[in-house]
Amino acid sequence: KSASKLLIKGGTVVNAHHQEIADVYVEDGIIVAVKPNIKVGDDVTVLDATGKFVMPGGIDPHTHLAMEFMGTETIDDFFSGQAAALAGGTTMHIDFVIPVKGSLSKGFEAYKEKAKKSCMDYGFHMAITKWDENVSREMEIMVKEKGINSFKFFMAYKGALMINDELLLEGLKKCKSLGALAMVHAENGDAVFEGQKRMIELGITGPEGHALSRPPVLEGEATARAIRLASFVNTPLYVVHVMSIDAMEEIAKARKSGQRVIGEPVVSGLVLDDSGLWDPDFINAAKYVMSPPIRALGHDKALQAALSTGNLQLVGTDHCAFNSTQKAFGIDDFRKIPNGVNGIEERMHLVWDTMVESGQISVTDYVRITSTECARIFNMYPRKGAILAGSDADIIILNPNSSFQITARSHHSRSDTNVYEGRKGKGKVEVTIAGGKIVWENDELKAVPGSGKYIEMQPFSYLFNGIDKADAKYLSSLQAPVQRSKAAS
Amino acid sequence: KSASKLLIKGGTVVNAHHQEIADVYVEDGIIVAVKPNIKVGDDVTVLDATGKFVMPGGIDPHTHLAMEFMGTETIDDFFSGQAAALAGGTTMHIDFVIPVKGSLSKGFEAYKEKAKKSCMDYGFHMAITKWDENVSREMEIMVKEKGINSFKFFMAYKGALMINDELLLEGLKKCKSLGALAMVHAENGDAVFEGQKRMIELGITGPEGHALSRPPVLEGEATARAIRLASFVNTPLYVVHVMSIDAMEEIAKARKSGQRVIGEPVVSGLVLDDSGLWDPDFINAAKYVMSPPIRALGHDKALQAALSTGNLQLVGTDHCAFNSTQKAFGIDDFRKIPNGVNGIEERMHLVWDTMVESGQISVTDYVRITSTECARIFNMYPRKGAILAGSDADIIILNPNSSFQITARSHHSRSDTNVYEGRKGKGKVEVTIAGGKIVWENDELKAVPGSGKYIEMQPFSYLFNGIDKADAKYLSSLQAPVQRSKAAS
Amino acid sequence: KSASKLLIKGGTVVNAHHQEIADVYVEDGIIVAVKPNIKVGDDVTVLDATGKFVMPGGIDPHTHLAMEFMGTETIDDFFSGQAAALAGGTTMHIDFVIPVKGSLSKGFEAYKEKAKKSCMDYGFHMAITKWDENVSREMEIMVKEKGINSFKFFMAYKGALMINDELLLEGLKKCKSLGALAMVHAENGDAVFEGQKRMIELGITGPEGHALSRPPVLEGEATARAIRLASFVNTPLYVVHVMSIDAMEEIAKARKSGQRVIGEPVVSGLVLDDSGLWDPDFINAAKYVMSPPIRALGHDKALQAALSTGNLQLVGTDHCAFNSTQKAFGIDDFRKIPNGVNGIEERMHLVWDTMVESGQISVTDYVRITSTECARIFNMYPRKGAILAGSDADIIILNPNSSFQITARSHHSRSDTNVYEGRKGKGKVEVTIAGGKIVWENDELKAVPGSGKYIEMQPFSYLFNGIDKADAKYLSSLQAPVQRSKAAS
Amino acid sequence: KSASKLLIKGGTVVNAHHQEIADVYVEDGIIVAVKPNIKVGDDVTVLDATGKFVMPGGIDPHTHLAMEFMGTETIDDFFSGQAAALAGGTTMHIDFVIPVKGSLSKGFEAYKEKAKKSCMDYGFHMAITKWDENVSREMEIMVKEKGINSFKFFMAYKGALMINDELLLEGLKKCKSLGALAMVHAENGDAVFEGQKRMIELGITGPEGHALSRPPVLEGEATARAIRLASFVNTPLYVVHVMSIDAMEEIAKARKSGQRVIGEPVVSGLVLDDSGLWDPDFINAAKYVMSPPIRALGHDKALQAALSTGNLQLVGTDHCAFNSTQKAFGIDDFRKIPNGVNGIEERMHLVWDTMVESGQISVTDYVRITSTECARIFNMYPRKGAILAGSDADIIILNPNSSFQITARSHHSRSDTNVYEGRKGKGKVEVTIAGGKIVWENDELKAVPGSGKYIEMQPFSYLFNGIDKADAKYLSSLQAPVQRSKAAS
Ligand SMILES: [Zn+2]
Ligand SMILES: [Zn+2]
Ligand SMILES: [Zn+2]
Ligand SMILES: [Zn+2]
Ligand SMILES: [Zn+2]
Ligand SMILES: [Zn+2]
Ligand SMILES: [Zn+2]
Ligand SMILES: [Zn+2]
Repeated sequence: KSASKLLIKGGTVVNAHHQEIADVYVEDGIIVAVKPNIKVGDDVTVLDATGKFVMPGGIDPHTHLAMEFMGTETIDDFFSGQAAALAGGTTMHIDFVIPVKGSLSKGFEAYKEKAKKSCMDYGFHMAITKWDENVSREMEIMVKEKGINSFKFFMAYKGALMINDELLLEGLKKCKSLGALAMVHAENGDAVFEGQKRMIELGITGPEGHALSRPPVLEGEATARAIRLASFVNTPLYVVHVMSIDAMEEIAKARKSGQRVIGEPVVSGLVLDDSGLWDPDFINAAKYVMSPPIRALGHDKALQAALSTGNLQLVGTDHCAFNSTQKAFGIDDFRKIPNGVNGIEERMHLVWDTMVESGQISVTDYVRITSTECARIFNMYPRKGAILAGSDADIIILNPNSSFQITARSHHSRSDTNVYEGRKGKGKVEVTIAGGKIVWENDELKAVPGSGKYIEMQPFSYLFNGIDKADAKYLSSLQAPVQRSKAAS
Repeated sequence: KSASKLLIKGGTVVNAHHQEIADVYVEDGIIVAVKPNIKVGDDVTVLDATGKFVMPGGIDPHTHLAMEFMGTETIDDFFSGQAAALAGGTTMHIDFVIPVKGSLSKGFEAYKEKAKKSCMDYGFHMAITKWDENVSREMEIMVKEKGINSFKFFMAYKGALMINDELLLEGLKKCKSLGALAMVHAENGDAVFEGQKRMIELGITGPEGHALSRPPVLEGEATARAIRLASFVNTPLYVVHVMSIDAMEEIAKARKSGQRVIGEPVVSGLVLDDSGLWDPDFINAAKYVMSPPIRALGHDKALQAALSTGNLQLVGTDHCAFNSTQKAFGIDDFRKIPNGVNGIEERMHLVWDTMVESGQISVTDYVRITSTECARIFNMYPRKGAILAGSDADIIILNPNSSFQITARSHHSRSDTNVYEGRKGKGKVEVTIAGGKIVWENDELKAVPGSGKYIEMQPFSYLFNGIDKADAKYLSSLQAPVQRSKAAS
Repeated sequence: KSASKLLIKGGTVVNAHHQEIADVYVEDGIIVAVKPNIKVGDDVTVLDATGKFVMPGGIDPHTHLAMEFMGTETIDDFFSGQAAALAGGTTMHIDFVIPVKGSLSKGFEAYKEKAKKSCMDYGFHMAITKWDENVSREMEIMVKEKGINSFKFFMAYKGALMINDELLLEGLKKCKSLGALAMVHAENGDAVFEGQKRMIELGITGPEGHALSRPPVLEGEATARAIRLASFVNTPLYVVHVMSIDAMEEIAKARKSGQRVIGEPVVSGLVLDDSGLWDPDFINAAKYVMSPPIRALGHDKALQAALSTGNLQLVGTDHCAFNSTQKAFGIDDFRKIPNGVNGIEERMHLVWDTMVESGQISVTDYVRITSTECARIFNMYPRKGAILAGSDADIIILNPNSSFQITARSHHSRSDTNVYEGRKGKGKVEVTIAGGKIVWENDELKAVPGSGKYIEMQPFSYLFNGIDKADAKYLSSLQAPVQRSKAAS
Repeated sequence: KSASKLLIKGGTVVNAHHQEIADVYVEDGIIVAVKPNIKVGDDVTVLDATGKFVMPGGIDPHTHLAMEFMGTETIDDFFSGQAAALAGGTTMHIDFVIPVKGSLSKGFEAYKEKAKKSCMDYGFHMAITKWDENVSREMEIMVKEKGINSFKFFMAYKGALMINDELLLEGLKKCKSLGALAMVHAENGDAVFEGQKRMIELGITGPEGHALSRPPVLEGEATARAIRLASFVNTPLYVVHVMSIDAMEEIAKARKSGQRVIGEPVVSGLVLDDSGLWDPDFINAAKYVMSPPIRALGHDKALQAALSTGNLQLVGTDHCAFNSTQKAFGIDDFRKIPNGVNGIEERMHLVWDTMVESGQISVTDYVRITSTECARIFNMYPRKGAILAGSDADIIILNPNSSFQITARSHHSRSDTNVYEGRKGKGKVEVTIAGGKIVWENDELKAVPGSGKYIEMQPFSYLFNGIDKADAKYLSSLQAPVQRSKAAS
């Protein structure tokens, strides 16, 4: 049989805009046809999807593979992380390039190097961690020559990645001019720093101190600030890892008044609560440490609700895995626990179970929040995020009657723990096809290093539509400058 | 040339989920292909759409043609109203059947009769104006045998159409069991009645008294009530003609908490304000009378903003036209002015100019709010609301560089006034194709009475997706009944 | 020593507007002087209040003594209930007169009779349970001749006390014209009825079914509705027993926009949660049954917060006690469990412990929410609610360093259970003085039947201040009626 | 007659907590008695107040007299400004000391010097414009030795007064430890700077550019930020000059959740709108320039509404007057127009007319928002802000049937313009008594330089009540640190 020809028969093909029973025919990594009763020759590999959902592979908008952070490096690199992704039904991710010594270009080159071992497609956001003329110039190069259309600003991590409002404003203006999407990590870094000192002074050095030092009010504050500055500049904003009701409500309020703000909850925020941080076993507790923190019970349900009706738009993971040894760096001081949880393998299952199985969203919504909306925001649709003729053949087959169970013993991340350890649910990704190849089937992974491609993303996504007209309309509404004679009054 | 074969060449084909430059080929009323460079024979009529947008024809979810109301009948019947629609780029509408002497079946038959002269496709909602076992039984017949999947309840029009909360609850439950969408006209009818008396007592008998007698707070009240009762029953709700910030905010709040509420602003509420009601010329003032009333400046912009980000979902017209003679019934008492404004012809143009030309939404959003979302909500997608192979060939070609001007002198409604008189803007529907036929081209209308079809709409639209699972999950969460021994304590 | 002359020495005298260290001298039931170092003769009884707070006796705005309800009568009558009140530092209450066979006058007479055994001062609200000309006329008599200045309307208890919006509007208008305060029990009675049926059908017949049948959304709905109707009439509104975040937020929103709405949380809503209703012991569970229900954890803290900043204004109890035998009427059906909890004795202690000891409010605030604001709203200030020369000598001495403990074994209500059983806290009312007499001291009660007076309350409290001016301003803002010539246009 | 003995007869004496008809007797600058029918000797000056309101003199919490700012000095010094105040019924103000070369002590001495010519009582806030150990130490001296209990932080005026979040956090902590109230000027200074550049680039150099460069969203942002940082530190916050709905709503939201936030609208924000800034006459336009700017129509009414129900608490002026010559510094660039409007003389009249005459508040509320609440917040009550025996004799007599008219031709400020020029209304301050002396009567002013006293204000006002208990409760709620064995897991 030809490895490059596939027919998926009889499944319910689901796009964000529609679902129907149809066959999907793939050749050379591209979807060629989507319609009922496709006839093919004997050389074609046929997969029976009867009673199952055939959907675009997941796209994870927020990952950190092979990232140097807090004195160590994430345990998953571009191969192991992507392998885990594929086993979980995710066929593309967008990772954050960290500049090298302030240079965006060097950062980009370094990440291209790291990504050589990729076994699935990937794209890049770029983190902006300082501001000068050079950064501004390099942003332009990244957008015009390197296929990057989004930049992330950190309002936290004081003394390291954090930038102040003046630079954020510069960044927002530059992003607008380039048609690039500004993203923010929204926590008030000054106050977090203060909160950390306070906890240490109180003798609260364990993982619970991490959450206590940066409560939801600080996430709400920074989210409100970023939204209002973006409104002032009139450019779209993407808030990464929305973890709290406080942040979500700011996004909902802005959207109600017509502002283009995208809110990305992450799986851990949707399905976990902070109780794990109080676990008397340090390692168990430390694995829940991420920023912004996983919140108290109640935030999870509220984020799910907002997601179900489009007040939040897509789901990421912030996959940033460290193993026990690394987490143990902070045994005496939570500030030294490397921040991050896993999720790249678990996202598709947990979102299905939490959102679809609970009746909160439809299967088309599921495709939208796990894949299509990400592709649209980052301007790759319909190449990615769709099961349409001409789209890349990144496809999953999910069996709603099968079930999944999560454990570090069998997951594909290199981490020796899993923040979702023991979790079970309904719905299982039985087949993953990436770039037209079956890479996951019968619980067996066939990931090939180097088979993943870098996906260039063009600026001026749909979020920029009409911004120029709105600006012009605003200016014409000012009734200014007023004509005044300078003669004495 | 064959009248049944059409090729639209070179336009930007816009669906709610995607836009691309492509050709559209139509045969026998159905879209056969959508792709670049379609080759056809000489018998095919070719339309050049280069530089223009090729979009699904508008679907107006809210019209009243040939309706008997307030002692008269709307001036537009199923032919004149639909002709106006076609001239304005709308190719389908959903009208409200009014029961006859309490009988839904008789109402349905009467409207089928009225609709025989139709020149475009149409569907029906059914108004529920009282409640008994018979109504309940007939609702089931309407859904299962007659192609109706939505029922409207009036919280206003005391003494006439209004129902109380007890009946509304019964109606919501019945709708839920049938998979039919409950719609509400949301104003507190008791308070409106009181407000009308108050105005008359104050000697305010003119059209301005209409708005003053039913302020936004009464719309907000009823909207909040209907939403909460629908939440209590856990069934989707559709709020027709959202005219005020008060109502919109209730919808946004409910959606934020995960409730399935659809808000339908109408064109008049989006682009007009109430100042016309104070016009010293009675006829000019009276033409603005509709319920809920057109509101003070500020509500319009707020509704536009909410619409732009999906807090409101689709745009209707509540087209319910009366001519000057009819409006004059209320010369001495605003309560006798037939309620209603025109809009079926103007909707597509005004929404384009107000929302797209101002930069508030993209062209794909435009398709969504004028056509696709309506088709999805009433379960006709993708037959309606899409330019896809297999869809009905209801298509418009809009030239963004052309412009429109509205006046009663040239409009196609039979009314002798137009509530948008004198309004100009950019963007013009140059061609309308309904059922595969060109019916509007070069400002010339070719509407054929009897050519329109009744579109049956199936229950259990996407809004019902997962409702059963959510109900089951709710029940299992109750931890009830508690097991108690009845022995003395 | 003269029983009619008292000197309270050295305490911190607290009024809502100020606290200071001073002596308080009382003669013949009236406060004669409040200043430092008052010298008196030997015949005067002297109480040492050094280190303690001398405050106005509590006023409970919401009680039901000797009320016939749900086929039985509350276990506490005007003597036992008031005795309990005095032991807990409350020296006045306002009870709800229930009309007799629709007659307000007969209801009033009946309650005057019941109240003959009173051992402390009391006033009356009047419940309005139906509407006709007679009721309207009698309301006027109650206000002008009987000392009643508030009327309560029930939006729940369908088939019994409930009135619809039409009557509520009539009631609001009548109240406004009389300068009387409209009060509402805010739950959607139609939906509650539906919810009760639903629970019984599900086999949930126990006390937990009570809460499940009437969730917060129904309280929020009715609160929103009453507020908006009161806004429409422009008359003040008093929402009794605010039990949920949903209701509180409606009140806060209305107040933010300038509307005069008073929200009365009750002690049970402030300090309890609904978990008790799930107690496997029926009697333990049944004692928590009241309407609106005690809510899930979280509502309590939110109500406390709103109370602390004046978004809610005063605290009542809805004391409506039944003993175990009576509660057992509903052993097979929660709808037959007499609704009501105790609280008249516990209110002052629990509010102190929950609000003052937690640091949420100051002692002056405590006086305001337990006494002064009630006196102001019902127009008895400064006769009641103040420690000022000329005020009635209703005084308590609270020791902040002492502590209290609540149990049915020692409480003064006749009930054999206590919904706060086992609760402990800081702050104890050591002395209660009512009408200038020491009635509670050294844990000993000296209540004298017949010593309590009926307090007539005048209409047009401060809440009505400026209403006429606002109405006039509204009218002059309408720019209506518009002058129109009737000549043809 | 003795100048030091006064009897005010027959007026309605109004305190924030109560009003009654009574006489007021004053000796040597102190109120000696408040009761009906006071008999006095012939040497006492008697004022007849029959039919009039006798109220505490106004206290203006926010003024700038003799302040050096933007290269010039305010036109009103401590004599002319206070003279104007007295003529308008204000008998005390609190001015902002600006540090001299970073030194709080030097600033304090400078202001003591400026204030020597005072003709009425005054107090000081202290502005904090940078942060170091010295400032921290001096804050302590100011509080413990100099009678200052409030410190103001500027979130705007980039490059001059503005501080960042790190310093604001330090300031909040220091304030909390001292029991001093933190005040903020809340606008995002970085964004304002950006907005100013933008306007200049657009060629909008006139006064309208001032408002356009710093829209409400920037005030809302900074208000939200300050509130959340204060919540994080758990210390009270006072937001000066609340000018917009955006800021007001943040305050209301925080208060609803129990946070102690005080919002001070100023008269210009309550009664003006921004249209004046578009006046084609530069001087007319420039006189409206203040920061935050006077907002568009609609903000005024919303602020009034919030004030009427206690969501905002007291009214200031931000009196900071410049004459035409000074305003003309910015003829070519709005950034050089000295910021500030008058108001110290007009406040009492305009608040009466706008709030009481419109029916929005009662006379007792009027006393509360113009005098008493200010005295309570800054810990001078009941010495100031009350007509009680023992209080300072700062008293006004207001005739509700008389009327006022404002014009620069007759006002007492030294400015040659008045931002309220031409405004008329009902209610006139006919007599002002300051320190027991009649200083304003029959439209004649008898202000004596040097007669005003510096009022020391003690820390730990009522706003700090319970903060320690709440902190302790918070700590005990953390369940941290968790006890963990360090043994391997
Ligand atoms: Zn981050
Ligand atoms: Zn991240
Ligand atoms: Zn309607
Ligand atoms: Zn309609
Ligand atoms: Zn009740
Ligand atoms: Zn009650
Ligand atoms: Zn300022
Ligand atoms: Zn100032």
